[in-house]
Amino acid sequence: MKAEIIAVGSELLTPDRVDTNSLFLTAQLNRLGIEVTRKTVVGDELDALHDAFGGAMERVELVISSGGLGPTEDDRTRDAVADLLGRKLKRDPAVMSKIEARFQQLGRPMAEVNARQALVPEGAAVLENPRGTAPGLWLEARGHVVVLLPGPPHELKAMFSAQLEPRLARLSTGVRLLARELRVAGMGESDVDQRIAPIYARHDGVQTTILTAPGEIQVHLRTWSADAPAAERTLQQLQESIVLALGEAVFTTAGESMEEVVARELTLHHATIATAESCTGGLLAERLTRISGSSAYFLGGVVSYSNTLKSAWVDVPAEIIESRGAVSAEVAIALADGIRRRTGATLGVGITGVAGPTGGSPEKPVGTVHVAIADAAGSKERVVRFPGERDRIRWQASQTALDLVRRYFLYAAQPKPFMASGRSEPGTKG
Amino acid sequence: MKAEIIAVGSELLTPDRVDTNSLFLTAQLNRLGIEVTRKTVVGDELDALHDAFGGAMERVELVISSGGLGPTEDDRTRDAVADLLGRKLKRDPAVMSKIEARFQQLGRPMAEVNARQALVPEGAAVLENPRGTAPGLWLEARGHVVVLLPGPPHELKAMFSAQLEPRLARLSTGVRLLARELRVAGMGESDVDQRIAPIYARHDGVQTTILTAPGEIQVHLRTWSADAPAAERTLQQLQESIVLALGEAVFTTAGESMEEVVARELTLHHATIATAESCTGGLLAERLTRISGSSAYFLGGVVSYSNTLKSAWVDVPAEIIESRGAVSAEVAIALADGIRRRTGATLGVGITGVAGPTGGSPEKPVGTVHVAIADAAGSKERVVRFPGERDRIRWQASQTALDLVRRYFLYAAQPKPFMASGRSEPGTKG
Repeated sequence: MKAEIIAVGSELLTPDRVDTNSLFLTAQLNRLGIEVTRKTVVGDELDALHDAFGGAMERVELVISSGGLGPTEDDRTRDAVADLLGRKLKRDPAVMSKIEARFQQLGRPMAEVNARQALVPEGAAVLENPRGTAPGLWLEARGHVVVLLPGPPHELKAMFSAQLEPRLARLSTGVRLLARELRVAGMGESDVDQRIAPIYARHDGVQTTILTAPGEIQVHLRTWSADAPAAERTLQQLQESIVLALGEAVFTTAGESMEEVVARELTLHHATIATAESCTGGLLAERLTRISGSSAYFLGGVVSYSNTLKSAWVDVPAEIIESRGAVSAEVAIALADGIRRRTGATLGVGITGVAGPTGGSPEKPVGTVHVAIADAAGSKERVVRFPGERDRIRWQASQTALDLVRRYFLYAAQPKPFMASGRSEPGTKG
Repeated sequence: MKAEIIAVGSELLTPDRVDTNSLFLTAQLNRLGIEVTRKTVVGDELDALHDAFGGAMERVELVISSGGLGPTEDDRTRDAVADLLGRKLKRDPAVMSKIEARFQQLGRPMAEVNARQALVPEGAAVLENPRGTAPGLWLEARGHVVVLLPGPPHELKAMFSAQLEPRLARLSTGVRLLARELRVAGMGESDVDQRIAPIYARHDGVQTTILTAPGEIQVHLRTWSADAPAAERTLQQLQESIVLALGEAVFTTAGESMEEVVARELTLHHATIATAESCTGGLLAERLTRISGSSAYFLGGVVSYSNTLKSAWVDVPAEIIESRGAVSAEVAIALADGIRRRTGATLGVGITGVAGPTGGSPEKPVGTVHVAIADAAGSKERVVRFPGERDRIRWQASQTALDLVRRYFLYAAQPKPFMASGRSEPGTKG
């Protein structure tokens, strides 16, 4: 089965906005065995919409759009499609009362203009929107299915999973896209490729793509097959060979983020963590607390930008800052150990560096970052020089810190190299 | 003049790749007074290419494509367009010798397959490629111009500037796109629309678009005009009327982020700031320190996830946490005031709330967040109930906190409502 995706919105035709909904939609459709053969971005004009939907319906059986379902005058997707299919728009009382209820729940008055969102073309099925006021629409006509989804990504995603996926699953044929993803930290793209090219070259039927994301390399394996068990076996075999070649640099084969991997390890080992950051400005704490339930292992963190606060909050000796400089291995270790002692956490993490664009020197150029972790028995430190802009440097620094924590637990059953004794201090709060 | 952009390549129809060449092309075309009315992504199949280029030529005068000019079997853009326009492909000796020279220069043997890149449709002008082997092509037919550019961004950009821009400048009519953007915090989309619809409705020639981004609403004003000064006056007038209608909710008309606005105000008033966060987990500190040079005003912050640390680090009285709960106005104020006193900052900011998805209660459901700021003379607190998921709630909470700081400085010249005396405590570090 083939599909086209139409992203609606004049803002997507400016130099500032790119349609990313279609990436999510493509991933989901592929999983259901539906191939995406074209993507179109059009503005909000009725005739442009008319033409885009009409053209797509001539080519494929399934057309999915995002955007243009909002309450304003600019939102014309439902008008254009109703007109194209010759359906009248009628106000749906059930949708209307849900919109009213949503405003009531948020304690805000409902602007009259929101009533437009309750207009439904005749014969259309309404797809409920648990995260917003604009419902989605499912229309069938002349052997085609046209689906209209809202533009905000979080609304679109929730609606897809809850409402659209079950409907599409019923339509789809037996051929499925099977995919695996390996995520790698601490290695470069060409290193990864060099190590695994001899492996994936032996698997013709599997498409292997290596992508670079900030702080990580992703290896994507894809294959289309009607024989899912056989294809799964092939993918599994290929994946295992690649993991063997890349070793512990692979941090997940299950699509987890680095934060999720670290959260799992901390929980598994009943360990707690605390952070003392300088150049990352809170990013490490923010990433650790993205995970729901993080209060079970994350005790707290400090962002000690000024040197005075480094000493006052986490007891970094002023002499060390004086003699080694604020950006040094010694200060990173003192931050990690200081925050661990102050909070009683199992692990402390310290980061100090030059995020730039100013503040670099010949010995410590922009991008130089020291990262340390400490437990009751000792500490481990890494210095890295990251390329790129301030935000990329900060991100990569936080990624390196999380990766240090992850690798710490790889050896948690055995004695760790930087430790004399065991590690199992209870994570007392306070 | 209107244009469509076609991105060619099956890899752009996977979940992992997004076409970004069109953003660069749109910016350049707009500068030349050319409007982009549609963007299409198609795969490498001949019939799909045929259909995409044919459709675009029916709608607009200028069609620009990227990709599909390489040496491999998959690269079929030039074949499809030559066929569509009924032009024969001939090997161009000048192009051929340039390709050979390039390989010689790189010290590599030229694979025979590269000769395909020297095929040029009859009547086409060749656009030289200083950074690769695939030349671009410029074709004129039936009053239309079709331009084929290579896919790699650095090749496309160099070719555009050197070869295409001068040609397009000759075509263009002097009409330019002029644009403004207003960013609004603390109001919903429909509220904004209701207040400003009567204003923009009076300006037919200006296209007004209202967009929702996390924690803010954007109002985009765009107009095409051959008379730039007159159009600038119209935009200015419209912008001023909208600012008047929305009042202090407009946080920038200059494209700044909220962080940048806050950074500017802090610098302007020689003020310093420190943060004490709970549910945002460091996001507020992270956003404040995204700005280069933030060490001039940001002293430090704490993420006090546990109640013990709220007391130990920023002196939140345990009795208040006990009697009012950790998520309360009193704790938010105590966090703000405590961190201010601990650091000596001009302003302290405190955030406490329920980011979810767990931890909500009937009185304090998920999304309930208390935000407070404090100076030497007093404090101000706001409670908000945000909709959405954990990450959206955290983002909106940090946005509300930054917006409180921004609004604080709106009245910084006059006495503020929550202050008895003046505010000008020097921002001593420590």
